Amino acid sequence: MTVSLKDNERIDDLQRNGYRIIQNPKKFCFGMDAVLLTGFAHAKATDVLLDLGTGTGIIPLLMEAKYGCRRLTGLEIQPESADMAMRSVELNGLSEKIEIVTGDIKEAGSLFPPASFDCITCNPPYMIGKHGIVNPQDSKAIARHEIFCTFEDVVRQTAKLLRPGGHFFLVHRPFRLAEIITLMTKYKLEPKRMQLVYPYVDKEPNMVLLESVRGGNPRMTVEKPLIVFRSPGEYMPEIQDVYGF
Amino acid sequence: MTVSLKDNERIDDLQRNGYRIIQNPKKFCFGMDAVLLTGFAHAKATDVLLDLGTGTGIIPLLMEAKYGCRRLTGLEIQPESADMAMRSVELNGLSEKIEIVTGDIKEAGSLFPPASFDCITCNPPYMIGKHGIVNPQDSKAIARHEIFCTFEDVVRQTAKLLRPGGHFFLVHRPFRLAEIITLMTKYKLEPKRMQLVYPYVDKEPNMVLLESVRGGNPRMTVEKPLIVFRSPGEYMPEIQDVYGF
Repeated sequence: MTVSLKDNERIDDLQRNGYRIIQNPKKFCFGMDAVLLTGFAHAKATDVLLDLGTGTGIIPLLMEAKYGCRRLTGLEIQPESADMAMRSVELNGLSEKIEIVTGDIKEAGSLFPPASFDCITCNPPYMIGKHGIVNPQDSKAIARHEIFCTFEDVVRQTAKLLRPGGHFFLVHRPFRLAEIITLMTKYKLEPKRMQLVYPYVDKEPNMVLLESVRGGNPRMTVEKPLIVFRSPGEYMPEIQDVYGF
Repeated sequence: MTVSLKDNERIDDLQRNGYRIIQNPKKFCFGMDAVLLTGFAHAKATDVLLDLGTGTGIIPLLMEAKYGCRRLTGLEIQPESADMAMRSVELNGLSEKIEIVTGDIKEAGSLFPPASFDCITCNPPYMIGKHGIVNPQDSKAIARHEIFCTFEDVVRQTAKLLRPGGHFFLVHRPFRLAEIITLMTKYKLEPKRMQLVYPYVDKEPNMVLLESVRGGNPRMTVEKPLIVFRSPGEYMPEIQDVYGF
């Protein structure tokens, strides 16, 4: 399968199932957070999955590669990113299984039937509001800052779209943990599993991975620390497992 | 200063300021959680501190040793533990500074003036309800299970007694983290700092240390992992610092 590339676009190997992804380094490329989320998440071969704010589609591609799933949908508000995601899906011969929808997370609840997903994943913008942003139309700013949607929007729509007992997988920044947990609880997306990602064993965590279950009971597991580097440039074995090399 | 010991009581050295504590191994002895809480907490020499559910008084004794404080109060519902705490205070010549009050956490808000403390510490019962308890009058059961008060009672009374901007320091079990954070937020005790305590670098955490600030803004710091053992029986240096040996 060949697809056309636009200016500044390149094709990267995902090191998994031979899958590849189209990215534009001038816009936004996926980071370790998206990859770690797909390692933390789990799904069954029969699951129907939605990725909110899918960007160039990294999460649906990796979730399909790792867990199969019956059908996967990526929702993305930026037409340019959604277009790259669609071409990546095509490039990997997955057009029958992965659908990319251009649309707004805030309206996700009306774009899809209620309680229609077994799993929802999200690697949302981490930063609150437009603080420090020069150009709010900039695609990197949109991916990183809550310009088009807040975290509460994500949780509200997830609560509508997830079936009871369904799983929500999130990667976010630890500094927002109290707000994240409070909002998940408010919308009955009970936090059930958490893992903190520490860049080094003696450093503060820079990511938090969370799994919540719609309507779950209030008791959670905090997992062993996920430590990224043993020494500068040298990944810990767990990280190599997630990346698949 | 000499004090009388009762049946089965012993005096233990706290390895700090020459302080000692009276404990009864048949009843309840303090654990690493109380010690780690006093290492995680901080207080000024001018602070007025309250410890909710003080047991044999380990937290006021160590907080006084480490940070000074102007006045410290320990509230304990079990008369036998409170009596041991009072004698330990006497034993260390601290009767002018540390007061032990026998009373119920649920009524703490009426035992002391509102907003009268700069710091409140708590090492509460971790387990929910009376599940698995043979004798709910057993002093170990009372210290470990929510027989006399729930976590919401602790938070409700803390919110009454802490001055705006005052600090609440808690040690608890990670499995209750979602409930803890949700209740702290509900009572405007904003979680500002958290540290997970992992027994080993590759094991799930068994304690969580939390600091919240009454009326604080919603942004928190998660600290580097606190790892207890380098190998079985060999403490990591951070733990040796906290213990003071």
